[in-house]
Amino acid sequence: MAPSHRATLDTAVETIRSRAHWSPHPEHPRAYQDDGSAAFRALCDTTFDLGQPGTDDWVGGETSPYGFPLGVRYPHADPDVLLPAMRAALPAWRSAGPERRALVCLDILARINARTPEFAQAVMHTTGQAYPMALQAGGPHAQDRGLEAVAYAFAEQTRTPERASWTKPQGKRDPLALVKEFVPVPRGIALVIGCNTFPTWNGFPGLFASLATGNPVLVKPHPRAVLPLALAVRVARETLAEAGFDPNLVALAAERDGEGIARTLALRDEVRIIDYTGSTAFGDWLEANARQAQVFTEKAGVNTVVIDSTDDYRGMLANLAFSLSLYSGQMCTTPQNVLIPRGGIATDAGPKSYDEVVADLAAAVSGLLADDARAAGLLGALVGPQVLDRMAGAERAGRVALASRAVRHPEHPDATVRTPLIVAVDAADPDAEQAFMAECFGPVSFAVAVDSTDAAVALLRRTVRERGALTVLGHTTSERVARELTDACLDECAQLSLNLTGGVYVNQTAAFSDFHGSGGNPAANAALVDGAFITPRFRTVEIRRPA
Amino acid sequence: MAPSHRATLDTAVETIRSRAHWSPHPEHPRAYQDDGSAAFRALCDTTFDLGQPGTDDWVGGETSPYGFPLGVRYPHADPDVLLPAMRAALPAWRSAGPERRALVCLDILARINARTPEFAQAVMHTTGQAYPMALQAGGPHAQDRGLEAVAYAFAEQTRTPERASWTKPQGKRDPLALVKEFVPVPRGIALVIGCNTFPTWNGFPGLFASLATGNPVLVKPHPRAVLPLALAVRVARETLAEAGFDPNLVALAAERDGEGIARTLALRDEVRIIDYTGSTAFGDWLEANARQAQVFTEKAGVNTVVIDSTDDYRGMLANLAFSLSLYSGQMCTTPQNVLIPRGGIATDAGPKSYDEVVADLAAAVSGLLADDARAAGLLGALVGPQVLDRMAGAERAGRVALASRAVRHPEHPDATVRTPLIVAVDAADPDAEQAFMAECFGPVSFAVAVDSTDAAVALLRRTVRERGALTVLGHTTSERVARELTDACLDECAQLSLNLTGGVYVNQTAAFSDFHGSGGNPAANAALVDGAFITPRFRTVEIRRPA
Repeated sequence: MAPSHRATLDTAVETIRSRAHWSPHPEHPRAYQDDGSAAFRALCDTTFDLGQPGTDDWVGGETSPYGFPLGVRYPHADPDVLLPAMRAALPAWRSAGPERRALVCLDILARINARTPEFAQAVMHTTGQAYPMALQAGGPHAQDRGLEAVAYAFAEQTRTPERASWTKPQGKRDPLALVKEFVPVPRGIALVIGCNTFPTWNGFPGLFASLATGNPVLVKPHPRAVLPLALAVRVARETLAEAGFDPNLVALAAERDGEGIARTLALRDEVRIIDYTGSTAFGDWLEANARQAQVFTEKAGVNTVVIDSTDDYRGMLANLAFSLSLYSGQMCTTPQNVLIPRGGIATDAGPKSYDEVVADLAAAVSGLLADDARAAGLLGALVGPQVLDRMAGAERAGRVALASRAVRHPEHPDATVRTPLIVAVDAADPDAEQAFMAECFGPVSFAVAVDSTDAAVALLRRTVRERGALTVLGHTTSERVARELTDACLDECAQLSLNLTGGVYVNQTAAFSDFHGSGGNPAANAALVDGAFITPRFRTVEIRRPA
Repeated sequence: MAPSHRATLDTAVETIRSRAHWSPHPEHPRAYQDDGSAAFRALCDTTFDLGQPGTDDWVGGETSPYGFPLGVRYPHADPDVLLPAMRAALPAWRSAGPERRALVCLDILARINARTPEFAQAVMHTTGQAYPMALQAGGPHAQDRGLEAVAYAFAEQTRTPERASWTKPQGKRDPLALVKEFVPVPRGIALVIGCNTFPTWNGFPGLFASLATGNPVLVKPHPRAVLPLALAVRVARETLAEAGFDPNLVALAAERDGEGIARTLALRDEVRIIDYTGSTAFGDWLEANARQAQVFTEKAGVNTVVIDSTDDYRGMLANLAFSLSLYSGQMCTTPQNVLIPRGGIATDAGPKSYDEVVADLAAAVSGLLADDARAAGLLGALVGPQVLDRMAGAERAGRVALASRAVRHPEHPDATVRTPLIVAVDAADPDAEQAFMAECFGPVSFAVAVDSTDAAVALLRRTVRERGALTVLGHTTSERVARELTDACLDECAQLSLNLTGGVYVNQTAAFSDFHGSGGNPAANAALVDGAFITPRFRTVEIRRPA
């Protein structure tokens, strides 16, 4: 194990306190040896054996959104064999203590980082992300979030010392004196239920938070995005075994499409922690039914932009156009509803009417995506056919201000690539409201005409309270409006970005500095990563005896 | 506000890291001006007006276990008026920030501390605790636990800075630069559901944890133990108002006996945090039904002692006799099942058979309580008639090894005072098992004959897993057995004390150093006080904008 892991851990712990920019994981493709395609091709059409106990069958059926089957077959587990084997691995991992666990986790992350291009290919061909984004978001940024979870886990577990002496004076009598040991103990097996669009980025925080706090982790990937997490499980098992621990501390639960094993696993008594990213319906089901477990969910939300005014109209439009286009809006953080006062807004380029703002935003998106090759590199491919269905439904909600365009991918002609659709609607139209007040995941946004900025803030509040939001973006030159947006986000517990006009986008957060979600509105009951994401994963047992 | 509150806060934060002995609250009665009886008498037979909005009636009906009605009438609240008033107080309290909130909480605690004798009388005459214990446990020790919660809340809220600068290099281009604000935001109204036996000790941690993290707190006391918490609410409201905050940040919800308003309040949408101490049935109901809230519960458990061997037989018996007698065993931490190998144990006084150990323990209890005045001062009064019913039931479970004796209280002849009952049972007897595997709250313990120390450890494991435990005590001279007891407590997540033979008792924990409960077995889903008791009470909202 590299001796520098301890230094990395210390810097991570320091950075979650300073919230400055930092990452040990380079994000530029040039930092990595190759583009991972050879390693990826070598994985396709193979049996991905992990040596797990209780493997009763082999399953697989992933198809790349770029138009070919992956052909990888994964172990299908008998939980009655696999879960007891995982449980048996717990005591030695618990005994290792917080520091050793953190360092092993850092070693897993370092090995994953060394294979970033291979992970990037796996992410690309399961999610549809373009390669540069799959490399960054699926590689270093996901690794950062995993490391951040380890740093929080280490900090929370070591706030109580391993040993303490306690001496209480008793006047003239001898003092009372005890020695005390404090041991962080894990809760049990942790289940990570992965999502289709960001398997590593959304999966790593829960995986590493649970593992670093001593819990064995069973990873149940989305049946259409298994490979990235299967690779992570393989690396984790190898690292654990080399470090002298039972590899069954991390295992994979692949399933047949439609088998629905998450529902079964989530109710197993051995499962005491669940991390889930996905639909609101199943997230709500987990919260209501997996009562034996601590359940951390990220569900659907309706992200809102309030446009009041700007002193950089072009910058605002360019920034927003990029946010709407990146990965075809298939991010849980992509803005959906852009609220614009009916009477228009003040800008550095003069007053702009509602219609002008909508038209200029449409033009900014069109301009950004005019070149097919560049567009494909930004948009990636649609993750599945259900996205097209949602787009067709959204078109009927109002006036199409920017039609979606099919883009031919230069290298992958079978990929379904679409530019964003912008639908102009009026907040007062109840039919339109039905559409824009529900999450429409994919390259769809609504330019919502509202009576005023005050009405926009009121609608923002209602949207967050009723539907949840992972991101809120405001554009204003008025400190009063900035204050009102801030108050709304404090009251409704949503993360706010103001006046982004440059190279920082509302849909991106930086580990160690930004919180992803708040855990305080219906979009998610957890934030990545804060103390509340960590502390319920372990308990502290004290052993005291006379000194 | 005393300038030293900040120093006290700093020492508290430091002590929860060192786990050393410390308290700013003197525990000796001589530290306080009088015995509080004049203040207490002045409260009796009065209307306890708190100036709360929505007071629609006056209710009361407390009777002292020492034999007289208190005659205090408390405000009965209309939640449709009171809860919105409390909610309206939230934004200004949120804006105050973690440090100011902590210092106001410390001021509340300091004012409560100054009135410790009055609280002691109120605790004594609602719980039945003897005055010296009511003073210590209901006064300084409860205040310590409240302060500990404030210290944890302050530490958790300030681990993220108020502001941060974030600058990310972009090669030859200008760096990306953001300024970020981080604001801890409360979840909503917190409901504290008090218990009959330790209204302040069990009530203060949740009250102060929620208040210090920005949440308004509604205190719903047990209908037979209102006065101690009503006094705390009054002090809190006065302190808040003097500090320029809305007194409705803390309010009382008294009820008619049998009204059951906890059930109604717990399901109100405004209520987002619940702290509860009481029966397993209602705790389980809260966890299952109050889904809009974070629910912290302390419920019933079966505390176990394993006697393997000792090198201080007399010390062990004396220590255990005290533990069984203190407040007539009406503590959630009192040992219930004393597991003793059928073949006897090794001691410094030679080998002792099971029967000898039981007889010697009975004699130790009898000796300790031989003098009625001393006995009354240790036992206090039974909190209610249901305790007598349970004692009668327990007698039928086995052979009575020590009969309970009625003690005449020298000053309060109407008080029901009883010495502990010890029932000898065999672990192999299924009828006895039904009795000893359920919590029998009160002065009842079972001396359980088991096959061996190994069998005792196995029964300990099963008891904690199935019924929960707040405390486990082991006596052994063998490091192997100590290791097995430790492993059992780590596996089942219970707090372990070993070989207590002096002035530290298993039923007592010290704030800032000992954890009360673990939160990881069926006796409680929360520990007092750890990070997990604090972090779910607030979220962090980030506001970021270009630098």
